[in-house]
Amino acid sequence: MDQQPDQKVVIIGGGFGGLSAARELEGARVQITLVDRSNHHLFQPLLYQVATAGLSPADIAYPIRTVLRHQENARVLLAEVTRIDLAGKHCVLDDGSHLPFDWLVIAAGARTNYFDKEAEWKPHAFGLKDLDEALEIRRRVLLAFEAAEREADPVARQRLLTFVVIGGGPTGVEVAGALSDLARTVLADDFRTIDPSVARIVIVERGDRLLSGGFDPKLSKRALRQLVELGVEVRLGASVEAIDQTGVGLAGGERIDAATVLWTAGVKARGVARTLGTELDRAGRIKVGVDCAVPGHPQVFAIGDIAHMVQDGEQAPLPGLAPVAAQQGRYVARSIARGGKPGKAFRYVDKGVMATIGRSRAVAQAMNGSLRLSGFLAWCAWLFIHIWFLIGFRNRISVLANWLWNYLTYRRGARLITGERSWDLLPVIAGHQAPKELSEGDGPASRG
Amino acid sequence: MDQQPDQKVVIIGGGFGGLSAARELEGARVQITLVDRSNHHLFQPLLYQVATAGLSPADIAYPIRTVLRHQENARVLLAEVTRIDLAGKHCVLDDGSHLPFDWLVIAAGARTNYFDKEAEWKPHAFGLKDLDEALEIRRRVLLAFEAAEREADPVARQRLLTFVVIGGGPTGVEVAGALSDLARTVLADDFRTIDPSVARIVIVERGDRLLSGGFDPKLSKRALRQLVELGVEVRLGASVEAIDQTGVGLAGGERIDAATVLWTAGVKARGVARTLGTELDRAGRIKVGVDCAVPGHPQVFAIGDIAHMVQDGEQAPLPGLAPVAAQQGRYVARSIARGGKPGKAFRYVDKGVMATIGRSRAVAQAMNGSLRLSGFLAWCAWLFIHIWFLIGFRNRISVLANWLWNYLTYRRGARLITGERSWDLLPVIAGHQAPKELSEGDGPASRG
Repeated sequence: MDQQPDQKVVIIGGGFGGLSAARELEGARVQITLVDRSNHHLFQPLLYQVATAGLSPADIAYPIRTVLRHQENARVLLAEVTRIDLAGKHCVLDDGSHLPFDWLVIAAGARTNYFDKEAEWKPHAFGLKDLDEALEIRRRVLLAFEAAEREADPVARQRLLTFVVIGGGPTGVEVAGALSDLARTVLADDFRTIDPSVARIVIVERGDRLLSGGFDPKLSKRALRQLVELGVEVRLGASVEAIDQTGVGLAGGERIDAATVLWTAGVKARGVARTLGTELDRAGRIKVGVDCAVPGHPQVFAIGDIAHMVQDGEQAPLPGLAPVAAQQGRYVARSIARGGKPGKAFRYVDKGVMATIGRSRAVAQAMNGSLRLSGFLAWCAWLFIHIWFLIGFRNRISVLANWLWNYLTYRRGARLITGERSWDLLPVIAGHQAPKELSEGDGPASRG
Repeated sequence: MDQQPDQKVVIIGGGFGGLSAARELEGARVQITLVDRSNHHLFQPLLYQVATAGLSPADIAYPIRTVLRHQENARVLLAEVTRIDLAGKHCVLDDGSHLPFDWLVIAAGARTNYFDKEAEWKPHAFGLKDLDEALEIRRRVLLAFEAAEREADPVARQRLLTFVVIGGGPTGVEVAGALSDLARTVLADDFRTIDPSVARIVIVERGDRLLSGGFDPKLSKRALRQLVELGVEVRLGASVEAIDQTGVGLAGGERIDAATVLWTAGVKARGVARTLGTELDRAGRIKVGVDCAVPGHPQVFAIGDIAHMVQDGEQAPLPGLAPVAAQQGRYVARSIARGGKPGKAFRYVDKGVMATIGRSRAVAQAMNGSLRLSGFLAWCAWLFIHIWFLIGFRNRISVLANWLWNYLTYRRGARLITGERSWDLLPVIAGHQAPKELSEGDGPASRG
């Protein structure tokens, strides 16, 4: 703590990385400004539960201001950093103003990556990276069932009840399992015309196994078995060639007619990374050294999903996981508190990975794979750990109450179709024309 | 229960009126189709709590399908009735299809009424009739504080921290009190630049007292005193002459510069009422007889906010309250179950009215005004009654947990700014230009 007071620390992003950096600097003689485009920290690992109507947004998001309300050396700015000027040592904000820094922590995270197909596929295949995207998926999934209830033609109805999840990583596996639950248990009694349990859920994975990133192949097999038990179709080694309004086309010519397509097949760094002018990887991530610093800029750090860091001896960069970001955040905070004096290289301590598969199923591994769990036991571990790490006591009990309630009753408390556009969406999803609206503005905006 | 089986009952609207009619017909030998544009029943009396970040949407809304899931003679249709054909005995739906009925219950409710100023005022003064409108208000209120934190000019900052509520009825009183709480307690420690407690909250009421509809004048005085204690400015006998982007203009020339203007000054019937071709009142409500039936159409009923019913001996029609709609719903259901055989005229049993004023304050009256409560006692009664009547056990505990938590900690669990448009809103509210967005679509839609 021997640097001069009033050193300015700017942290871009209020996710696991940025927030843990800010918290670790509590009491340090620095002026912290945490900048985020959104006013809340998001518990990303549970986002799929919002998308599948298991939890409400408020259960997994918490105002950043509230997290830092009592930390005197930190202020929060709802703003977007449009450009980083390394030479001028300032960030340019959305309104053109400059935010000067002595130390910079870039933790802006990642967004959905459609690779070279963004223009064609993004309008039809929905990503799951933030609350708005989760609510968009929830809206479309629930509307697909509603449209099916109104649909007379059995072929069109089957299309409405078909959900394709592209990508067999943790998010894809979790959202597919949750969709199966939603259709087979939660909605089962709610419809008269359709039988929601005939809903078809398909995972399309290019690789030869599920959960290839960081999971032991044995767990990939168990995840596959558990998904099949839930009635989920898993297509391994299948690559997507086309996505449009009507469904998905696979290599080899097979088509899957589906009203709802989700995309969990890749992420890339947020655009602000490109404004640095330093070396990026193929996913647009900032290449950093073992001290998390941008090469040649010892006081500028990149952490979490926006950073590309190779730990000694390994080929792949560190995975985009919350614990990696949080550990890096604490690491760079300690470097800043030391005034930049050299310290040990960052080392990620892998406490394990897990993925839940619907209700009461999961896979988990810890201690570098030497401990592996699956099924109900893994699910209990998953439940406990996720609730435990949710920021905020209130959220913990609220999420726990939600889960217990859902588990006991097979219901969903968050099964709301909201959003001004949702009413217009129905005929679009159903493939009909837009509804005729009453003349005097009695339109979508005036009904939930 | 002596009418023929398979009589078709169509209920338009899943609010208090329509839902209680459907529930009361459980077991009756009829085929019920409940049609609503939204998939959830909304507990309207608590909508202002969502608008002021006290509760989450899922706390006050419940899927209609779930409410009726075990009622074999009822089905639910997510659809909009665009026209009612009395002669043809069918409703025309948004997709042009016809929904035939033997019995019709019109319970489509009301929406915000800007009288002859809708075109000019609606874009600037926000109504509070459904979840989307409540979320829009929440978004704007929270963004106003965020913009103020970024605003250097004190005059512009005061405008951002000024909130005008037009209309001194229960909704206006409740939302103003809740806004005062939000600013003075919840947000108090969260900002560094601004002091949220300097926020200015103004109620503009054309009449000479608050709560003029159905409340005893003594309670109007107490409500006024309690609001003043909360720091709310109350302008009685003040009529609005202009509303625009910058604020509100009052008769006499006074201007109130405000970034946020809420409109609770009136409601009118939903547009579908006009398609009947029968007599309407000035608010577009369907005039019905003492049997809730449309004159000349003994098998067509209108109930709740969309109906205009004068009880014998009274001048004013029955007020637009949940208990009125619910009692009328049960009444018409019994008429239908009787096969239309004449019964006693409908009589509204007034169990009392109440309004809450911020934290731990309220006014309440019962037994036709002979019992009057105000302050903490009234607030406890209000709390108990509202939680009790929330549909769904889960909602009850969730709402109770939320309230206890808010009450003990002065926090808000639902303080999220979401919505794809929220990012674009910030500069608009702040009066700046729209933010420059990163080229490759790293735009609002990709952040919560």
